[in-house]
Amino acid sequence: MTPSPFAPVIPFDPPALDGVAIATAMAGIKVKGRRDVLLMAFAEATTVAGVFTTSRCASAAVDWCRANIVDGKARALLVNSGNANAFTGMKGRAATKASADMVAQALGIAPEEVMLASTGVIGEPLQTEKFAAVMDELVGSLSPEGWDDAARAIMTTDTYPKAASRSVEIGGKTITINGIAKGSGMIAPDMATMLSFVATDADIPADVLKAMLSNGVAKSFNKITVDSDTSTSDTVIAFATGTADVLITDVAGPFADALDDLLLELAHLVVKDGEGCTKFVAVTVAGAESDSSAEKIARTIADSPLVKTAIAGEDANWGRVVMAVGKAGEPADRDRLAIWFGNVRVAVDGERDPAYSEEVVSAVMRKPEITIKVDLGLGSGTNTVWTCDLTKAYVAINGDYRT
Amino acid sequence: MTPSPFAPVIPFDPPALDGVAIATAMAGIKVKGRRDVLLMAFAEATTVAGVFTTSRCASAAVDWCRANIVDGKARALLVNSGNANAFTGMKGRAATKASADMVAQALGIAPEEVMLASTGVIGEPLQTEKFAAVMDELVGSLSPEGWDDAARAIMTTDTYPKAASRSVEIGGKTITINGIAKGSGMIAPDMATMLSFVATDADIPADVLKAMLSNGVAKSFNKITVDSDTSTSDTVIAFATGTADVLITDVAGPFADALDDLLLELAHLVVKDGEGCTKFVAVTVAGAESDSSAEKIARTIADSPLVKTAIAGEDANWGRVVMAVGKAGEPADRDRLAIWFGNVRVAVDGERDPAYSEEVVSAVMRKPEITIKVDLGLGSGTNTVWTCDLTKAYVAINGDYRT
Repeated sequence: MTPSPFAPVIPFDPPALDGVAIATAMAGIKVKGRRDVLLMAFAEATTVAGVFTTSRCASAAVDWCRANIVDGKARALLVNSGNANAFTGMKGRAATKASADMVAQALGIAPEEVMLASTGVIGEPLQTEKFAAVMDELVGSLSPEGWDDAARAIMTTDTYPKAASRSVEIGGKTITINGIAKGSGMIAPDMATMLSFVATDADIPADVLKAMLSNGVAKSFNKITVDSDTSTSDTVIAFATGTADVLITDVAGPFADALDDLLLELAHLVVKDGEGCTKFVAVTVAGAESDSSAEKIARTIADSPLVKTAIAGEDANWGRVVMAVGKAGEPADRDRLAIWFGNVRVAVDGERDPAYSEEVVSAVMRKPEITIKVDLGLGSGTNTVWTCDLTKAYVAINGDYRT
Repeated sequence: MTPSPFAPVIPFDPPALDGVAIATAMAGIKVKGRRDVLLMAFAEATTVAGVFTTSRCASAAVDWCRANIVDGKARALLVNSGNANAFTGMKGRAATKASADMVAQALGIAPEEVMLASTGVIGEPLQTEKFAAVMDELVGSLSPEGWDDAARAIMTTDTYPKAASRSVEIGGKTITINGIAKGSGMIAPDMATMLSFVATDADIPADVLKAMLSNGVAKSFNKITVDSDTSTSDTVIAFATGTADVLITDVAGPFADALDDLLLELAHLVVKDGEGCTKFVAVTVAGAESDSSAEKIARTIADSPLVKTAIAGEDANWGRVVMAVGKAGEPADRDRLAIWFGNVRVAVDGERDPAYSEEVVSAVMRKPEITIKVDLGLGSGTNTVWTCDLTKAYVAINGDYRT
């Protein structure tokens, strides 16, 4: 697999997080010789909140988390790559129970305090004996280090590990937020998943954490798209250990800002590792009747195969942007539309901009990061969605994956 | 351009249609030396009905037709390829008026009786002088022959002309329906359009024709998708000359059946010429709560890039079908799902079918025509949507088009 041109060059080395211990192991879930299981253990008072896929065919692990996250308490997280434990019926449900029991027994906690996530091939029964074989090793090697290993252990077709860290000063104390993510966009072969796990040492009641996480995800992971395919297993979970002894009860404020910022960085890292991605694209729609109308139009542009292939071809094909605005079904007036690629206005008042130079816009299209802006001229609604281009490599990766 | 593997080998040679005269010419709209203008003239009593794009950024020709089709009368149709006259502002509106005036004067009819369609590049002003230069030639060469030429004149990136004919015996008389279409699916480069024109010698009141056409399009053109991108210019117009002296006032019956059948053939011809298409795919969803729920799920499967790339790779990747069912947002119960590729059941009761053989299903996937069937096990709603695969050729065609 060719690494994404956006792969970070500096390894992830965040500060350790008090109250979080990490271990990884090679369980041989799909292939031997790579770390494919991640265990995280959390301090006693840790609160938890999660956001999960909207799929009607959610994975067994998602079902487990949904059922057990309601009390807002968690002590451990077990994640495997190589098998999604999705569409596995009764066997899948039994596997989640067995996995949680195993972790609970090893750590002396309740099974309901164990969060689970699985990513990889669908429809294959998950063999929990493989967890059993490495459980002692995992528990024995738990340590505050290992965030980079953790980010690597949850990868499937990702070409680089995705991680981010933020520090915030609150009441004279330093709060840390660390997060990891995996996924080649909303889409990945065989529904390998967009997963993200975030931990902080702040003390945050579960309902506050849930509100902040939902707000943050709405502005980050829910604003990215590789090709509009929604995974069965999408999962973002945040843990707050409380060990820094800083209580946060405000859903807005410096902590929420730092969390938002971290989630957005992780979301961008996912898009930049989108399958076959060579361009990172921000699509901004302004002048809409409402922010949600702007989002729907931005998403329609970002999901359009015609727009995405044009970007892959470095073609400033603004006609396709008009097409996407037209098909979005939201209020739009053809004769008020203006469109920019980068800072170059290519269309205005419902016609090609008479001043625009193909040469200047071509230079914009050759850059690795591209912005498309549309002004509808109707109101003050605005929104941004991030996506990548659609390349032959995308087709190759997804046409040849399973066989 | 490599021809689609589904290109028909027998040229189209339908019976002439009394009351319809055809002419084509080389106007040099985009390139010189190819027939790019089509004129059809219709008998005096001809009724007309149309179905147009739902785009909020419709082309000037679509605006013209919508405004002038309301009285149900038409005497002429002028179509050009090479320029879509879309996103051309005031100039575009002026061009439609000038074109209709020109045809009206040449044929001695009213401008409102002239239907217009344009397909090709977007955002370029349409130069009506090019029509003026060939108008005498067009009017002078009008003849009942020339259906194949007509189908060719409206092509843009189509790799073959699309046409179909049906005959129906009604009251001891033979009624003919001829139709042509263009488009590489719902999508085509620079929003070149899905256009279709149908004519019959039956005598059909405009409101009946409109009802039949709407019914027929709902079951044919509105059930196909290449990649979900909606053109600014999609247009289907039916003309009934009445010259066969057979009055039809029933929206159901043998004529409607023949019309439905013809529209479906044309729609399938469009999908089979979808850009980069190597596989023709029928997606049937059964056991849904309603027919419309089944259609939404079938369309989600048919639009999923992950499903379409898997088919291009001849991979029976049923996990992606589960994913698409899950993301459709319609009622579905993971644990009741069953999935077939061709006649091979690959999943049942929410798990991989224990009896399924990869070898047998691989043989199914190597065929040029593939059916995917999903049974939701919830109700009796059923529906079918047709699509093609997503190949590297699609990316190449659309990444390299404009530059």
